[in-house]
Amino acid sequence: MKLTLTQILDFPKRYRANLINSLSGVKTPVLVGTKNQANATNLSIFNSLLHIGAHPPLLGILCRPNNTPRHTLNNILETGHYTLNFIPQNLIERAHQTSAKYPASISEFEACHIEPLWTDFNAPYVKESPIRIGMEFKEQLDIKINGTLLIIGEIKEVYIEDSKIDEEGNALMTAHDISSIVGLNAYHVAKRLYKLSYAEPDEKLIKTE
Amino acid sequence: MKLTLTQILDFPKRYRANLINSLSGVKTPVLVGTKNQANATNLSIFNSLLHIGAHPPLLGILCRPNNTPRHTLNNILETGHYTLNFIPQNLIERAHQTSAKYPASISEFEACHIEPLWTDFNAPYVKESPIRIGMEFKEQLDIKINGTLLIIGEIKEVYIEDSKIDEEGNALMTAHDISSIVGLNAYHVAKRLYKLSYAEPDEKLIKTE
Repeated sequence: MKLTLTQILDFPKRYRANLINSLSGVKTPVLVGTKNQANATNLSIFNSLLHIGAHPPLLGILCRPNNTPRHTLNNILETGHYTLNFIPQNLIERAHQTSAKYPASISEFEACHIEPLWTDFNAPYVKESPIRIGMEFKEQLDIKINGTLLIIGEIKEVYIEDSKIDEEGNALMTAHDISSIVGLNAYHVAKRLYKLSYAEPDEKLIKTE
Repeated sequence: MKLTLTQILDFPKRYRANLINSLSGVKTPVLVGTKNQANATNLSIFNSLLHIGAHPPLLGILCRPNNTPRHTLNNILETGHYTLNFIPQNLIERAHQTSAKYPASISEFEACHIEPLWTDFNAPYVKESPIRIGMEFKEQLDIKINGTLLIIGEIKEVYIEDSKIDEEGNALMTAHDISSIVGLNAYHVAKRLYKLSYAEPDEKLIKTE
């Protein structure tokens, strides 16, 4: 069937949100860990991780200014640092619960029974997470058309088991038992099919396990 | 192990690109179909689909100005329209081949043996794609820190089988036999685990198939 923009705008709000979110495909949710200057912590699930560049190593997340993650955004701008924590399968339900609208005075680490991990980094990690990334805020882009913000940070450190990076540098998103998501609430796991070689005109691709 | 920014910057270029790309998790690649004003077509695979908002329905893709997708970017800015086409498993190798650096005079539709589908929309679709989205360019954001561009468009129309949207509006990314990717070249399929209800403070999440 064909859906037109008019039909999409006429759908009930939640139905439309599910449809448009799911049309961005499979994503990997991360828990974003922050603290404010008074050391009060916040933890929030984001489904909008975006690769911005490898040199310098940059990742982006999308923030909705009028929504719960505002606490996260405020903390990032206040301290300049945040953590990205991938979600193993046995953490999915508690990670999803961080999307509830808790008041700023409540830490999702406590409310959702997720143990923080403190290091010398200026933001809390999630102890159970198999891949943890320490980020430094670099750039904020204001998206005019709907008031959302793209927050770009530089990777300062990565915690990952060495056996979980393949010989070409790829982090193994399945071996880590990392969860994926479609839309706002449909959790998935990814299974690796194969790798393809770098594409060149008129050269046959090589397929490897 | 812990990797520091210094270590990451010291990795060989390709290894670092794989690592940082894979650290943005599982993504769903799309083929972006465009034409220029002289009706010459272009098709290029992008791994950077980002949900920007549902009302209006907006999706973003990231463009590297000094790379192959420049043809795509030029065409989008020239015509104002482009298509996003999801990739079924039997299209993966030909879709990956579109990332080869073909000269502007060659259409990847022909070079990679991918059949275009022409409708009354101002850009070519991919005939074999099970979900096809017609997009209208809305906003360009220049990312200062590395010169990349976030291109934001509005969804004008969606082609999808009705049976492939669930009762809550979620497009079924697995039932469609849609491919996912980790990093630059590791293709995956996603398997749905379960859905969780909307999270509220102090309410138990409901898990459904």
